[in-house]
Parts: sequence; C-alpha cells; structure tokens
Amino acid sequence: MTPVVIRTNKRAAASDIVDLAELGVSTTHEAMGRSGLLKPYMRPIYPGAFIAGSAVTVLAQPGDNWMIHVAIEQVKPGDVLVVACTTDNTDGMFGDLLATSLKARGGIGLVIDAGVRDVRVLTEMGFPVWSRAISAKGTVKATPGSVNVPVICAGALIHPGDVIVADDDGVVVVPRLDAATVAAAGRKREANEEEKRRRLASGELGLDMYAMREGLAKAGLVYRDDPEG
Amino acid sequence: MTPVVIRTNKRAAASDIVDLAELGVSTTHEAMGRSGLLKPYMRPIYPGAFIAGSAVTVLAQPGDNWMIHVAIEQVKPGDVLVVACTTDNTDGMFGDLLATSLKARGGIGLVIDAGVRDVRVLTEMGFPVWSRAISAKGTVKATPGSVNVPVICAGALIHPGDVIVADDDGVVVVPRLDAATVAAAGRKREANEEEKRRRLASGELGLDMYAMREGLAKAGLVYRDDPEG
Amino acid sequence: MTPVVIRTNKRAAASDIVDLAELGVSTTHEAMGRSGLLKPYMRPIYPGAFIAGSAVTVLAQPGDNWMIHVAIEQVKPGDVLVVACTTDNTDGMFGDLLATSLKARGGIGLVIDAGVRDVRVLTEMGFPVWSRAISAKGTVKATPGSVNVPVICAGALIHPGDVIVADDDGVVVVPRLDAATVAAAGRKREANEEEKRRRLASGELGLDMYAMREGLAKAGLVYRDDPEG
Amino acid sequence: MTPVVIRTNKRAAASDIVDLAELGVSTTHEAMGRSGLLKPYMRPIYPGAFIAGSAVTVLAQPGDNWMIHVAIEQVKPGDVLVVACTTDNTDGMFGDLLATSLKARGGIGLVIDAGVRDVRVLTEMGFPVWSRAISAKGTVKATPGSVNVPVICAGALIHPGDVIVADDDGVVVVPRLDAATVAAAGRKREANEEEKRRRLASGELGLDMYAMREGLAKAGLVYRDDPEG
Amino acid sequence: MTPVVIRTNKRAAASDIVDLAELGVSTTHEAMGRSGLLKPYMRPIYPGAFIAGSAVTVLAQPGDNWMIHVAIEQVKPGDVLVVACTTDNTDGMFGDLLATSLKARGGIGLVIDAGVRDVRVLTEMGFPVWSRAISAKGTVKATPGSVNVPVICAGALIHPGDVIVADDDGVVVVPRLDAATVAAAGRKREANEEEKRRRLASGELGLDMYAMREGLAKAGLVYRDDPEG
Amino acid sequence: MTPVVIRTNKRAAASDIVDLAELGVSTTHEAMGRSGLLKPYMRPIYPGAFIAGSAVTVLAQPGDNWMIHVAIEQVKPGDVLVVACTTDNTDGMFGDLLATSLKARGGIGLVIDAGVRDVRVLTEMGFPVWSRAISAKGTVKATPGSVNVPVICAGALIHPGDVIVADDDGVVVVPRLDAATVAAAGRKREANEEEKRRRLASGELGLDMYAMREGLAKAGLVYRDDPEG
Repeated sequence: MTPVVIRTNKRAAASDIVDLAELGVSTTHEAMGRSGLLKPYMRPIYPGAFIAGSAVTVLAQPGDNWMIHVAIEQVKPGDVLVVACTTDNTDGMFGDLLATSLKARGGIGLVIDAGVRDVRVLTEMGFPVWSRAISAKGTVKATPGSVNVPVICAGALIHPGDVIVADDDGVVVVPRLDAATVAAAGRKREANEEEKRRRLASGELGLDMYAMREGLAKAGLVYRDDPEG
Repeated sequence: MTPVVIRTNKRAAASDIVDLAELGVSTTHEAMGRSGLLKPYMRPIYPGAFIAGSAVTVLAQPGDNWMIHVAIEQVKPGDVLVVACTTDNTDGMFGDLLATSLKARGGIGLVIDAGVRDVRVLTEMGFPVWSRAISAKGTVKATPGSVNVPVICAGALIHPGDVIVADDDGVVVVPRLDAATVAAAGRKREANEEEKRRRLASGELGLDMYAMREGLAKAGLVYRDDPEG
Repeated sequence: MTPVVIRTNKRAAASDIVDLAELGVSTTHEAMGRSGLLKPYMRPIYPGAFIAGSAVTVLAQPGDNWMIHVAIEQVKPGDVLVVACTTDNTDGMFGDLLATSLKARGGIGLVIDAGVRDVRVLTEMGFPVWSRAISAKGTVKATPGSVNVPVICAGALIHPGDVIVADDDGVVVVPRLDAATVAAAGRKREANEEEKRRRLASGELGLDMYAMREGLAKAGLVYRDDPEG
Repeated sequence: MTPVVIRTNKRAAASDIVDLAELGVSTTHEAMGRSGLLKPYMRPIYPGAFIAGSAVTVLAQPGDNWMIHVAIEQVKPGDVLVVACTTDNTDGMFGDLLATSLKARGGIGLVIDAGVRDVRVLTEMGFPVWSRAISAKGTVKATPGSVNVPVICAGALIHPGDVIVADDDGVVVVPRLDAATVAAAGRKREANEEEKRRRLASGELGLDMYAMREGLAKAGLVYRDDPEG
Repeated sequence: MTPVVIRTNKRAAASDIVDLAELGVSTTHEAMGRSGLLKPYMRPIYPGAFIAGSAVTVLAQPGDNWMIHVAIEQVKPGDVLVVACTTDNTDGMFGDLLATSLKARGGIGLVIDAGVRDVRVLTEMGFPVWSRAISAKGTVKATPGSVNVPVICAGALIHPGDVIVADDDGVVVVPRLDAATVAAAGRKREANEEEKRRRLASGELGLDMYAMREGLAKAGLVYRDDPEG
Repeated sequence: MTPVVIRTNKRAAASDIVDLAELGVSTTHEAMGRSGLLKPYMRPIYPGAFIAGSAVTVLAQPGDNWMIHVAIEQVKPGDVLVVACTTDNTDGMFGDLLATSLKARGGIGLVIDAGVRDVRVLTEMGFPVWSRAISAKGTVKATPGSVNVPVICAGALIHPGDVIVADDDGVVVVPRLDAATVAAAGRKREANEEEKRRRLASGELGLDMYAMREGLAKAGLVYRDDPEG
C-alpha cells in the first residue's frame, strides 16, 4: 500500500451520466440487475438532492483528511468525490472549506463512508453529501492514503471513473463501461413503469396486471374468510 | 406456516379512528397504560404526517414483496398496510408503484419493518411511510407469506383490524376492541393537559402543580448550596 | 449516590456564550483543541437550530423523568438542560408539557442522552432538542436522581455551568472557565477561515494554500499516470 | 396494564419437552415450519448447555427485577423463566442469588431480554442463561410488572406454559398445544437426516442427493470454465 | 490538549485492591451505590479472569498505539493499563508484543475502549484484556496523545490511580480515595449475601426473605387463577 | 447478474498457504501493508482454530442456501468456502449437514457473512466457521446466485483462489498472486518479532527499543510530575 495518486481521464459519456441522474438510484440499481448499491447507512444530509457524476476515489486513514485535499486537484467538472476509509470511522472529515474548494473545481457532490460537518452551511450552499454520520469531530493531516485507486466504500467496490448516482434512496455505483447499457436499460424500464403507474392509479391490481394469481396458487397460497366476519 | 390470506371485515369504529389520529402516538400510548408502541427505530420518511387506520397485516419473506401485491387487494378505504418480515431485513420492499396502487385502493399509509424506496416521489405524493430503513435494494417475488394473520412488527403484536396510529413520535397499535375506550381515555387526558399547559406556560412549576416536593423529600432528595457560589 | 440538588450560580459570561453560539459546534470544538464533543448519535429533532447556554445537569434513572421537573426550578434564563441517564435508555422522557415549563423559566433548549417525544409540537414551538432517540414511550416518576452534579452525557463529562453549544453538527461542551479563551480562539479561527474560503472559492488548491506538497512527498506519496488514459 | 400474577398449571407433556430438548433449537424450529425463533442477539453465557422447559413469563420494567422474585414462586420443577422488558434494557437484572433461589424451586434455566450478571458463578453452578447482554449494572425494586401474561421477548410472542427450547443456536418457543406435533415432526426429521448425513459423509453431493440440478438449470444457472485455468 | 505524560505515584492501598479483586465487579458496583460501571460492550477476551489494579490511563488517537508504548514506562507492578480513544474505534491497538512488555513491567491487565489482537497468544499467556472489539487491524505511531490524564473510557470517567476491577461481568472503576470505603462496604455486603444464599438454596422465597409481599400489594399487584387451569 | 458457476483451478502454492496459516491473521495483515481484513464482526464459533486455504466464493441471496450446495461441488481438498450475501442477513444458512458434505469434499472451513447453526455439533466435529451471527433461522432454496465470482464479504473484496487466513483475530484475504510475497514478508516479520519479544520480556521499553523518544518530543509530548505526588 504505497500511497499513490493516479492521474486518469477515464470518464463515462456525459449524456449517459445525465440520464442516470434522472433515473435515480432505485431504477438504476434495478437496471443493473440489482447490484452496485452502497449500504443503506449512507444518508443524504438534506432531502431532495439527486446527482450523478464520475467517481474520483480517495482511500483515507480514519480521522485524517489529508488525502481529500490531494484528491480535489484531480477533480474535473461534474465529478463526485468518493471517500473510503481504511477503518470504520465517523469523524467529520469534510466541511464547508473543503466543499468550497471542491465546488470551485467543478465537483458536484461527496459520498463519504465517514462523517461530515458544517452541514447547515453545506445545506445553504446546496452542496449535497451522502455520509455515514454527521460529526463535528475534527481530523488531522498525518498519514497519506491514495487517490484514484479502487476502493470499497460502504460495502461496494468503486473504481475511479465509475458513475456514482445518489439521491434520497441512497447511493449506487455503475461501472464506467456499463454506463451506456445501464442508462438504456433504465430508460426502457422507466417508460414501461409509466404505463403501469397509470393502470395502478386507476385501481387495477398488481395481482392482475402482473398475472400473479396462478403463481401464488401454485406456491400454495390459500384464501380463507375470517369466521368472525 | 401454510401461506394464507384471511379475508376479514373487522374494523374499529371510524369515529374512534379519527379521534386517535388527532390524539397522536404519545397520548394514545399513555391512554393505553403505556403499551402498544413499536420500537423507536421505526421512523417516518418525512416529518409532519399523522395518520390512524385499520391494519391490513402482511407477513413477508426478507427481500420479497410478493405478498404486498396480494395484500393490496384486501385493503379498504382508510386502511394502513402493516408489513412484518420473517427475518431482520432492510431491503426496499415498497416504492412508488406500490404506493400508487395502495392509494388507489384507499390505503392511507404504510408501516414496514424493512426498507422503503422512491422516498422523494412518495414525499411528493404525500404518501406517508414509517420504516426501519430507506434502501434502494430491490426485491424478488419468489416465496409466499401471509396476509391478515397476527404479526410481530418492530416488537409489537398486531392483529388485522387493529388501529395503527403513526406520527413523528413513531407508531402505536391499539387493539381493535379497545379503540373506543382508548380514544375516550385519550380525549380526557388531552383535556386535562390543556389546563396544565396553561399553568406551566405561566411559570408555575411541575414540582408544585403535581405536588411532588413531599414525595421527593421522602425518597431522600436533599438540596445543597454550591459552596463556591 | 445520595440524590441531591445543588443550587449554583456558576455561569460563564453572557457575551462569551453568545459568541460560542455563533461560532457553532465545529469551530468551537476546533478552538478547544478538538475536545469536548458528545457522541455523534446525538441529533437535533429539526434542522437549523443553533444555541449556546449554561448547563443545568440532570442525572436521571432510565425511563424516569422525575428529576427533570426538579431541575426546571434550577433553570435561569438562557440555560440549557442537560439530561444524562444511569443506563442506556431511549424512552421519551421529555415532551411538550415539560418544554412549555422549561421555556417559561427561560430555558432555551434540551440535550438528552435518551428519548424525546411530541416532536411535532416541539418543532412548532421552535424549542430545540438534541437527543439519542425519538420515542413515544412514557416514563414514571419513581426513583430520584440528582441535579447539578457532574454527569457523563453521550460520552462527554459535563459540569453544571459549563457552556453547551449545539447545532446541526451535534453538541460540544466548553468548560465554564475556558469559555472566554475558547470564544476568543474561535473568533480568531473564524476570521482566518474567511480569507481561506475566498481563496479556495477562487480555485486555489488547499495543497498549495496550506503548502502540503512537500510534506506529502516526504510521507511517500507518489503520482502516476493511468496507463490506460 | 394493571400488574397481575396469573397462577396457572398449563404445561405441555413432560415426554414431549424431553424430546424437544434433544432435538435442539434448529431442528425444532424447522419442525415448526421455521417459526418461533427469538432474535439471534440472545446468546448463552457459556457453550454447551441445552434445555427445554415450560415458560413462566415475566413482564418487567427496565432496570427493575422486583417481578423476578414474584415469578420464582410460580415456578414448578422443570420450568424455564422467561423475562421480557417494557423497554430495551441491558442491565444485569439476574445474578447468582436469584439463580440459587430459582434452582431451589426446580427452575432449569433463564431466558432474559436484558442483562445478566455473576456469570462466572452461574457457569460454575451450571445454571444456563440466554440473554441479550452481560452487565454488572444493578437494578431497583420499584415498579411492579406482571407474571404469566403473554410477553414479546426478543421479538417472539411467548405464552405461559409454552415450551422454551434453548441451546448454542439460540432460543425457540413452541406453543404449548403444538408441543406433541412438533416433537413428532422433529423426531421424523432427525431420523431422515441421519441417512442424509451418512450419504454426504461418503462424498455424495447435496446437488445429487436432493436432485437439484434440474431446478437450478431452470432457474437460469449456467456453468463456465475459467478461461485462465 | 497539549500531549502530556503525568508522572504520578497515586495508588490506593494494596490490601483494598486485593479485596476488590475478590469481591468482583458486580459486588463492587453495588457497594459503590451502583455507579462506576463501564458500558457492557467491554468484554473479556477469555472467560474466568478477575483482576483489580491501579489505572495508568492513556488517551490515544484512533488507530494509533504510540502512547501505549509511552504509558508502559509509567506502569508499576500491579497496575492496569486503561486506554481511551479520542473517537470510536475498533482497531487492534494492542497485541502480544505490547503484552509482553507490559507484563515485564508488572502490568496485570488491559482495559481498552478499542480493539485488541493476537488473542490466542494473549490467552495462552494468561494476560487478560477487556476490550470493545477483537480486530487484527494494525495501527500507526503518528500522533501523540496523553498518559495519566483523566479519560472517559467506555462511558466512565477514570482518573490515574483509580482502582479498576474487571471480571466476566465487565469492568468497574473505583475512585482512588473511595477504595477503602468501597472495599469495606463490599465485604459487609458479601458476608450478608452468604446467609441469604443459604436460605434461598433451602427453598425460602425472596418474596418472604425480603418481606416484599406488602410492598407489592400496595403497588397494586394482584394475583388471579388462570380460569383455564 | 446471470447466475453462473465458474469452474477454476486457480490456487496459490500449497507451501505458501501453510506458511500463512502459521503466521496467522494479524501478522499476515501487517505483511500485506495493513490491508485485506474482513470487518471485525466476523467471529469464530469456537476459540483456537486457525486455518488458511483457497477461497471458493459464493454469492448467495439472503436466507437462501441453494448456492452453497452448488459450491461444494467446486471445492478441492484444502479449500475454504466463502459466502457473501446480496443483502445484510443473519439467517442460519449453514449447519452440520452441509459441514459434513463440505468436509467430505476436503473443505477445511467456512467464512460466511451471514448466520450459521448447529454450532455445538460443528464444534464437536472440529469444523471451524467464522460468521457474522449464530442463528437457527432456516433458509429456502428458491433463487440462484453465483459461485466463484468476485464477492465483497464483510467489507473485503475476495476473488476465487485468493488465500483466506482465519484465526481468533478474525479473517484476512491474501490475493492469490501475492501469496508468496506476503508469506515471505510475514516470515521475515515474525523472525524479527522473536528478538523483540525477548528484549521486551527482559524489561526493555518499546520507547527505547524503537527509539521513539526523539520523535515524541518533536511531536510535542511533554512530561510533568503530578504536583500531588
């Protein structure tokens, strides 16, 4: 584990990234065959934000945000910073000064498997963060880590350049080379859901719309009337 | 555990249900002698919602929302869907399509001891959910469970037709046959609290209003002045 | 552990308390050399509140809010009630009636290492609470505790009269006698950050502004180009 | 919730209880159609114990072991004490003195959804306990609860007289009236497993013994050789 | 928080320390009026050990065991090393090499609010450790902390020279100046319990021995026969 | 995520695997530059076991052990089965029948990020398991997963053929191609530690042996005598 910064230009196509942001986390995750989700303990600091961008990854030491400064130099407009830690940690490794710097370089959000602070200011700035915790606990700059290496963040494997999609449902990672395929599958799925939504809203049952009754009967489901009414 | 759907008409009186919604969770729970609460990990997906309705219960397999489709057919206007799981699970078993369907049948909310997703859309729809987690993790339709059987949901025993009261303080279940008694006790308690609130707001101490000083002295409480000021 | 109430006038200077409220939790915590933070599980019941005040401390029994009534008599305008428990507990030990009483005596907020309830009403009242949990679970008045003794609340040692600073980032305690020094250090830090914020916003990197490049190189950090682009 | 002690003679047949102890938790749970398990956080204080007995249930207040004294009087030889709490609690509500008393009355073990203490002495006594926690935290005798009412203990509904089976795998409850049926189903299952164990030990694969290959192929499973060897 | 090592000779009397080891954690905690317990997540790495000794305290950075080396120099024969962390951490900050060194200086055990490793070797050495976690995760030596300052370890305030008592029930701290009083109270309590144990073993009920029946009746407890037998 | 079984012969050299077993988890993890550890919630079902073997990986559905049967066919003598789940789960997915089968095929242990059952029998068999939980909760065979694909197990990325080292300190994964290098680095480290252990046992301080005093002084550490003695 020599500390290293990899300079890379790998990014998915901008149009696919835009599509994934609009599809959102749940649809994207479905379009990937239900894979790529980060653990549900990753929560947004305020509701309503939804973003997609290319991952600049950071492997940091617990309670040490030195490498976040290093990583910001590698950020290109539209990127999302993804911070993993070598150990479970909830310290507030990122605050409004780093957000100001990250935003100035074109960064559009942060996903951090640790803590974040200055959340009132970050909310006023409209700078979205998905984190494991909110904590004012300050950090040191003592031990180097790495930038743009593959990391495991909140249980998911993320490579630099992968597409990060984040909204109120959580965070999902789309491998860079799959972005176009997944975006296409997601758009198709969404189109399909629009029609379903209309039918369900009119009172049609999923039981009938999806033709589930036969399968349920085969699986042994029986119906009984409550003898008491 | 043969999978079964019980068709039942058991409901508490509508007027009692309306009263319980207005009393809210904390007062209802007090009026029941401090029983019936679900574990405090059950949280609303957005603040400010408060509902009461009759429980249509679902016992689902983890990561499998097949029975939610089945249960929606059993929902009557004003009902609340209550989903328990055979094992601890946080997958997103319910999203905006199911909410559209449930709402179309008259369902007014969901209480689920698992995960929920599409929370931004659910919030826009004004469809309230109390859940253990928010997660985009998708589910299968593979193994049947049961509908309208007694379930243990977030540590509380819930029978179909019981009244579910839910607000920002959490979720409480009122046994169907106790609804009238509890609603009456709650209204009485509330009337009583109004007067207390006025007195406390004027600066009167609870110590005096509740005549606690003697009891505290008997229990051994002593007062001392700080020697340093 | 004889139950005792200490009557004390110890308070920090009002002007320092006002300054600390404006500095906020993260800056105050930094100005104290990164100490004094309560555990990050302490969360506000609604976003946006920020307060500072002198601690009136309560050591309560789990599920027993008797001593909160006792403590309210000891509150002076501008004080913050700090409730610790003899055992881990999430019961709703504080609700809108107690808030009404506490507010009438001049109390400006509550920090409680247990549960709180009636959070919708508390939010409407604009009465801020930082707690470990939200729970409708009611409490008894059976066993006395103490007021204005040193307590360990959410992992931090708090003496009566210490300054409590709380906002969206959490809660920090400033020892009473350090309030002036910490407020001064915080103001200096803040002035310093303003200039940094401006430079970072203009696109200057933290790497250069803080002159980190040499230190990183010494610590072994190397840069490499991605061979694939 | 008036505090009440129910005096009851309801017990399952002794021979079925003996059988269930020998079948153990996992087999019993399977023989019940995979129901009745307490949450897996319930762990034995020492390995190797396995018991079955009739439940004498206690609903206790957190940090208050008054009702355990009351319950011991209701214990008959061969019974298991089952303690549930009105709120989550880890205090050490049971120690070697209570174990001495419970054992003297014929009690054979304790299942407690809270803490236990004096575990070294309990281990030396060979008195088995399944608990949520080990904690020296002492308790009061201040608020009454109930004995031999239905309780929810570690997520399972337990009635007085139900059979409790506990071993290294955890704790399962068998409804009193189902004890004979479950014991019979378990014995049959065990006989069946003996033959399977022999075949598997000889190297036969479960894939073949259970004829799973066709089902897996239908479900879409494919085999591929690693191109790299 | 300037890093500092305090050289101190403060210790309780050896005879009191020996007594406290024999009384054990639960009795000591009772003899202190039920205070001083560390959180129950502190568990021994092997069963059966029981120790008491004077605390040499360490305030360490998460994932950094530099100060443990510093602290060992301050250890006198019979002391217990107590390690607190500035943030929640489970890294394996202590292993068999440090144990060898600590033992060579006369240290008799470790209490650490973080992780420990090499537990098989530590068990073979008979060197007892109470920790929050077992983890092989290695640590750095990068940032200094302090030795022999007051620390909050697993929720309890510990001063250097305080007596640490640890066994299978957990860990309790006795303030240095209270050691004699607590040891005396504990011995008295133990003598008293011997007689109680004998009476309970003979079948006498706690209900009668402690004369609880009247109090329970006053508190509203009623007895009823099960109508079904 | 088409379900797939990859047939592979990739294994590290047997002599390196043997060496890693003897080095153990903590030394191996250090020799890898402090990487590769699984989360510390993975615990052995009984103390004292230590193994190393090549990973046969399984990606299973929660509460579904179908793929474990499939995987056993792919096991070669000396292999370790590694089971990851698509969602957090604690069900007992592995018991004594599967252990009998796995052992018959030459499997030497199991690492499972879920639950295990029949632990008393597994202990008697001397078949070691590292798991997230112990639970009797039974499982279905309903949805296929994959065998010998890369998995994330307890937070670590594991490829088929990687070397799994497990003992009382936890579990670490060594990438297949690094096994020789890591084993060599570990042996060197161990030789080095033997000499250190001897010096520390003789009373030499780590402070002196590692020449830490100057670094500590530079980092600002000061020594003070306790003014009170």
